[in-house]
Amino acid sequence: MWFNKGTSPNNMKKLSELSAMIEEGLQSLSYPTTAATLYNPIRYTLDSGGKRLRPTLVLIAANLYNEDIQAALKPALGIEMYHNFTLLHDDVMDKAPTRRGRPTVHVKWNENQAILSGDAMEGLAYQLIAEAPPRVLKNVIDTFNLMNQEICQGQQFDMEFETRDNVTIDEYIEMIRLKTSVLLGRALQIGAYIGQDKQYGNLSDIGVNRYEWLDRDIETLFLFGTSLGLAFQLQDDWLDCWGDPKTFGKRIGGDILENKKTFLRLTALANAPEPSTEGMSEQQKIETYKIYYKKTGAEKACRLAIANYHQEALQALKKMSMPQPKLRLLKEIAAKLEKRNK
Amino acid sequence: MWFNKGTSPNNMKKLSELSAMIEEGLQSLSYPTTAATLYNPIRYTLDSGGKRLRPTLVLIAANLYNEDIQAALKPALGIEMYHNFTLLHDDVMDKAPTRRGRPTVHVKWNENQAILSGDAMEGLAYQLIAEAPPRVLKNVIDTFNLMNQEICQGQQFDMEFETRDNVTIDEYIEMIRLKTSVLLGRALQIGAYIGQDKQYGNLSDIGVNRYEWLDRDIETLFLFGTSLGLAFQLQDDWLDCWGDPKTFGKRIGGDILENKKTFLRLTALANAPEPSTEGMSEQQKIETYKIYYKKTGAEKACRLAIANYHQEALQALKKMSMPQPKLRLLKEIAAKLEKRNK
Repeated sequence: MWFNKGTSPNNMKKLSELSAMIEEGLQSLSYPTTAATLYNPIRYTLDSGGKRLRPTLVLIAANLYNEDIQAALKPALGIEMYHNFTLLHDDVMDKAPTRRGRPTVHVKWNENQAILSGDAMEGLAYQLIAEAPPRVLKNVIDTFNLMNQEICQGQQFDMEFETRDNVTIDEYIEMIRLKTSVLLGRALQIGAYIGQDKQYGNLSDIGVNRYEWLDRDIETLFLFGTSLGLAFQLQDDWLDCWGDPKTFGKRIGGDILENKKTFLRLTALANAPEPSTEGMSEQQKIETYKIYYKKTGAEKACRLAIANYHQEALQALKKMSMPQPKLRLLKEIAAKLEKRNK
Repeated sequence: MWFNKGTSPNNMKKLSELSAMIEEGLQSLSYPTTAATLYNPIRYTLDSGGKRLRPTLVLIAANLYNEDIQAALKPALGIEMYHNFTLLHDDVMDKAPTRRGRPTVHVKWNENQAILSGDAMEGLAYQLIAEAPPRVLKNVIDTFNLMNQEICQGQQFDMEFETRDNVTIDEYIEMIRLKTSVLLGRALQIGAYIGQDKQYGNLSDIGVNRYEWLDRDIETLFLFGTSLGLAFQLQDDWLDCWGDPKTFGKRIGGDILENKKTFLRLTALANAPEPSTEGMSEQQKIETYKIYYKKTGAEKACRLAIANYHQEALQALKKMSMPQPKLRLLKEIAAKLEKRNK
């Protein structure tokens, strides 16, 4: 039976312990010394903070199956490295001047340096991912490869939507699913594969096939992660209008001023034509759109969608093979993300 | 003894057979269908031809140890995919208008598309590399990861040299070694690991350590590949001045007009100050520099360096573990590259 194996809920790591592991791990990463200037923008990008949500998910998932999660640390850092690589190149493509309150790499250095250091960063992510235990390396790297393509596909859709007039809400959801949500799901899967290795990875060596429930967990974690990611991204859309300016990292109404095709805008558009904002100040335009989003029901639809994806995530966890107390941290993270205002 | 195992020289594949395998393999590559437009620039880049030298080296090296080289095909295509990814991003950074006689991706599409498709392409290369047999996957991927960083480091040096006045000849050699030569060496190593797998990869399963001579071969192949690569790159410098305009793919004198710091220029500069070319036509400037390179001995030094690296490559092959007739194809390729005029 499952509960005779793996981690006891009482021996599982706390969020603060996982955060400490990740920060320490990032600090002690060693970079090649040849052409050292290539790696300065990479250090700069990783030093700029962030929630470290994705590597935390890797470690939590590993911890579901194994008390010792040391083997998952390098791949977890690989996930964070990859995430930051996508931000670096996205900022080049968006010509974004700042990120987390500091000049972006292509501004602080130059565009060519941002492209090249980003390319090297994608490679460093693979180096860390390849530190997964040999027996699960293939599973881990296949998952990571798949995710890499999914995220590029999401970014492709995002780019194409800029110049398209007929983007549907379903298409928008698929875009954010690929661009931002699958990363959470794949991070959990990678952690789970690594956690399962020590406990169950040697099954084939003794002639036993991988238990079906291990693969079911892998699928369930992906569903949990992507649903959570979708709720998270839609909340971002909502906070852009109704977030607290004091705590929301970005300017309130930024999406409106940039005419971004968000869930709110696409939903409102499906119900009523856009209001005219000719001659309006920026603040007036933002207020006009916020009223438009409320009147058309888009604001309510957005809150509903967030709640639904959140619920879907929690429902998924019930299908996991382990006793529910072990899933405490995942629920804690989900609750934190739901309550966030930045 | 070695010659009781592996491939007999008479059963080894011919160059034409390897080329056919590679072209067929490239043609039958399947790309994701989601966001299919992301993959058009990748197909376009791979369709533009080229010598396919690097994947050929993967297959030749595998064939040294095993008659069946099917397991090496996907990783060989991964090497070609990676090589073309570097060309794609290099062209963005160089703002190059054409490549192999066709518009570059950032011209035919746009810069953002070139960056993003390049990122996806780096990922596709890893997908193909990860098709290496499980038992040698870690060796193969570690080699590939190392190479990926080396090539980024070479490109970093190349970028930095543009704005530096005091580049030494040693630094130039190290730059081209990293930027272009290690790829040949690593391609051979990856092929060798895969070829060795079927024949010798199960040694640890039966409690026997990997034979030392297998690792010695791996080192020797790297030396052969990088030496060949250096000869190849220096020949490129030489052909830029004295190549046959009818067969040399690029404009004769291009490096001179772009003031590129080539082996010829750096060697000449070390011996005599640059000639004044004020008011000269492009053709006059090219002729002036060709005389400068001859008078300063740079032209002769270049030919000597090419011959030396070529010799170093052939010498290295003598240290290989197998009977010399098996190395025929590698010698054939070396001879072809030496005689090339384009």
